[in-house]
Amino acid sequence: MFNFSYQNPTRIVFGDGQISQLSQLIPTGSKVLLTYGGGSIKQNGVYQQVINALKGHSYLEFSGIEPNPSYETLSKAVALVKAEKIDFILAVGGGSVVDGSKYIAAAALLEQDGWAILEKKARIKAALPLGCVLTLPATGTESNANAVITRQSTQQKLAFSHPSVYPQFAILDPKVTYSLPAKQIANGVVDAFVHVMEQYLTYPVNAAVQDRFAESLLQVLIEEGPKALDQPENYDVRANVMWAATMALNGLIGVGVPQDWATHGLGHQLTALYGLDHAQTLAIVLPALMQQQRATKREKLLQYASRVWGLQQQDPERQIDEAIYHTRAFFEQMGVPTRLTAYGLPASVVDELMAKLMSQGMNKLGEHGDIDYQASRAIYTAAV
Amino acid sequence: MFNFSYQNPTRIVFGDGQISQLSQLIPTGSKVLLTYGGGSIKQNGVYQQVINALKGHSYLEFSGIEPNPSYETLSKAVALVKAEKIDFILAVGGGSVVDGSKYIAAAALLEQDGWAILEKKARIKAALPLGCVLTLPATGTESNANAVITRQSTQQKLAFSHPSVYPQFAILDPKVTYSLPAKQIANGVVDAFVHVMEQYLTYPVNAAVQDRFAESLLQVLIEEGPKALDQPENYDVRANVMWAATMALNGLIGVGVPQDWATHGLGHQLTALYGLDHAQTLAIVLPALMQQQRATKREKLLQYASRVWGLQQQDPERQIDEAIYHTRAFFEQMGVPTRLTAYGLPASVVDELMAKLMSQGMNKLGEHGDIDYQASRAIYTAAV
Repeated sequence: MFNFSYQNPTRIVFGDGQISQLSQLIPTGSKVLLTYGGGSIKQNGVYQQVINALKGHSYLEFSGIEPNPSYETLSKAVALVKAEKIDFILAVGGGSVVDGSKYIAAAALLEQDGWAILEKKARIKAALPLGCVLTLPATGTESNANAVITRQSTQQKLAFSHPSVYPQFAILDPKVTYSLPAKQIANGVVDAFVHVMEQYLTYPVNAAVQDRFAESLLQVLIEEGPKALDQPENYDVRANVMWAATMALNGLIGVGVPQDWATHGLGHQLTALYGLDHAQTLAIVLPALMQQQRATKREKLLQYASRVWGLQQQDPERQIDEAIYHTRAFFEQMGVPTRLTAYGLPASVVDELMAKLMSQGMNKLGEHGDIDYQASRAIYTAAV
Repeated sequence: MFNFSYQNPTRIVFGDGQISQLSQLIPTGSKVLLTYGGGSIKQNGVYQQVINALKGHSYLEFSGIEPNPSYETLSKAVALVKAEKIDFILAVGGGSVVDGSKYIAAAALLEQDGWAILEKKARIKAALPLGCVLTLPATGTESNANAVITRQSTQQKLAFSHPSVYPQFAILDPKVTYSLPAKQIANGVVDAFVHVMEQYLTYPVNAAVQDRFAESLLQVLIEEGPKALDQPENYDVRANVMWAATMALNGLIGVGVPQDWATHGLGHQLTALYGLDHAQTLAIVLPALMQQQRATKREKLLQYASRVWGLQQQDPERQIDEAIYHTRAFFEQMGVPTRLTAYGLPASVVDELMAKLMSQGMNKLGEHGDIDYQASRAIYTAAV
C-alpha cells in the first residue's frame, strides 16, 4: 500500500425528506446564491422544497448552468456574487451545477479572472462556503474537491481541485431521482462504475480494504443499476445507487493505490469532437482498454473476474475474456452502447480522435504512463 | 436504508515515516500537551520520532494514562492543561491514550469538573484541538468522536461522544505496530471484527453498500489477522489490519443501518468483574449471542455465512451452525479463547454476571431491544 493523506470534510445528509434540513445547514445570516441548471428542478418539486427550506434566509438565484458548465455562464454568476456580496453558494442539481458552483465559490474570492485557476496561473487560497442538494447520482462531486469547467470560446475543458471547494454539506434524497429520465440514471451508473474501475483496475499493491471496497461498489452497481431502470420508484434501489456513486469518487477507495484515468482521457476526446455524453464515452473506451491493456492489468483483471463476476475458469485468458465480455454486457444492459459504430461513428474517426489527443500531447496515459499514441490508437480501433 | 447524517473530519495520514508530518499538522505556535501511556513508546522508537518531529513546537508531557483510562489520572492532566494554558493535545498511543486525551480536551474547556460529561450532567460545547499518533490498531477511536472513561473510586465505566473530540488528524504508521506483543495484535483484530459485526449482524434494510463494506472488512480481518501474527514485520499485512480497524469504527459502515452492541454490553461485565481484556470478552460473547439470537438475526446470518465464509449449504440451519463455528474458530486461531472456562471462569459466574447486568438495568439490549435478562442469561450460559 502506498502512503496517503485523506480527509473528507463534507457532511452527507442522506434520505427521504432531508432537503428540509437546509435551514439548519446553512449558517444563520448568510446571503445565499442558489445555483441551478435548466429548470428541471421546477418540474420535479425540488425547487419548491428548497425554497420552502430557505425561508428566513436571504438569497438570490442564478439559473442556466449548462451540462459541461461553461466559463462564460459562470463568469456572470461570479460577477453577481461579487456585486451582491454573496457569502454562501447553494448548488441544486447534478454534477455540472455542483462543479460550476465550485468554480463560482473559488473565483469569487480571486482578484484576477477565475480562468487563471483552470490554467494553473492562480493559486486558490480560499473559496466561499458551498453546499449542495444533489439531484443526479453520478460524478461524486458532491463530496470531493474536483471540478471540470469548459471555456466555450476556446473549446478548452479543464479541471481543478482544491480542498476549499469540498461542499460543506451534500443533501442526498433518493426520491428526487425518481423523475430522472432513464438515460440519466443509466449514464450515472456507468459513470460511477468507471470511476471505481479507474482506481481499481491497475496493478496490485496489497491494499486489501481498498480492493474489497472497490469490488463492493462494482457489485452494488451491477446488482442495483438494472433495477434502478426497471423500478424507478424503488426507494432502496435508488438509495443504493446514489450512495454507491458518492462513495465511488469521494476519494476513499483511491487512497494508497495506483490510479489509471486513461479511459477518461480517451473518452474526453469523444465528447469534445462528437458531443457524446461523458458516460457513453466511458462505456466505449473501457472494454477496449481492458482488452488492449490485458497484459499490464493481468493480475487485477483476474481478481476482478473472480471476485466481481464470480468467474472461476481454469484458463486465465478465458477468464479475462469473460470479464471483459460481462463488463460490456453490463453497460449494454444499462442501455449504453459500447461501440463507436453504435453511435454512428465509423472507423475513420480514429484518425480524428488521435489528432485531437496528440494536439494535447497526451502520450503517457495510464497507471504506468505507458499508454502512448500507439496504444491509444489500438484502444480506439478496438472500440470501433 | 435509514436516513442518516455523516461527517468525519479527521485527516488520516497513513504510512511509513509519517510521524515526521507532525510539525506541519500541529498549528504553528501551539502549546502542546503530549500524552501517552506506560512508556512502551520509549522502547519502540515512537517517542523519539515524535520528539524529533515536535522540534520548534512548545510542548509538555503527561504520561501514565493506563488501559481503561481513569478519571483520576486524567484529572491531573486536565489541571495541568488549565494551569499551563495548553492549546493542543497530541495523543501518542492506543485506544486508551486517545480516549483519555479526548476527555482531557473536552474537560479542559469545562468550568465544572469533567466527570459531569460522563454523567450527562454537562453539555460539551467545545474541546481543545486534538491529534494522535496511533500505536495499536483496534478501537477506531483515532477517527471517531467516542471515548470510554473509568472512574476507579466508584468502578463506573462510562462513555461519551461529541463531534468536537474527533481528532483533527491521526497518523497511522504500520511499522510502529511491529513491536507490539502478539496478544495486543490478536485483541485488536478481534475488537475490530466485532465492531463490524455490531453494525452488520442485525436485520436487512437493503443497505447494499454498507453490507458489502462490512463484509469486506470482515474478510480482510479474517485473511490478514493470522498473517499479522505469523509475519509481524510484513508491512502490507500490518497496513491492511490497521486501515481495516480504523474503517471498522469510523462511522461509515454504520450509517443508515440498525446496530446491535449487545456483545459489548454483555462483555463489559466480564471486564468489570474479572478483569478480562475487552477483546477477550467479545470473543466469548459473540459466538454465544449468534447462537442465542439466530432466529432474529437469521437473514443476516445466512448472508454472513454465504458472503463472508463462502458457505453455500442446502440446509440454512446447518449454514448458520457453520458460520458460528467458523467465527469461533477464527477467534481461537487468533489465540483468543471463546469460552468462559478457558479463562478459568466456571458456570457459576453466570449468576454474578447477571447480578451486575441487572444492577445497571440493562434489560433491553440488541438491535430490537429484545435481549432481556432471560436472553442475556442464555447467552452467558451458552458461553460457558
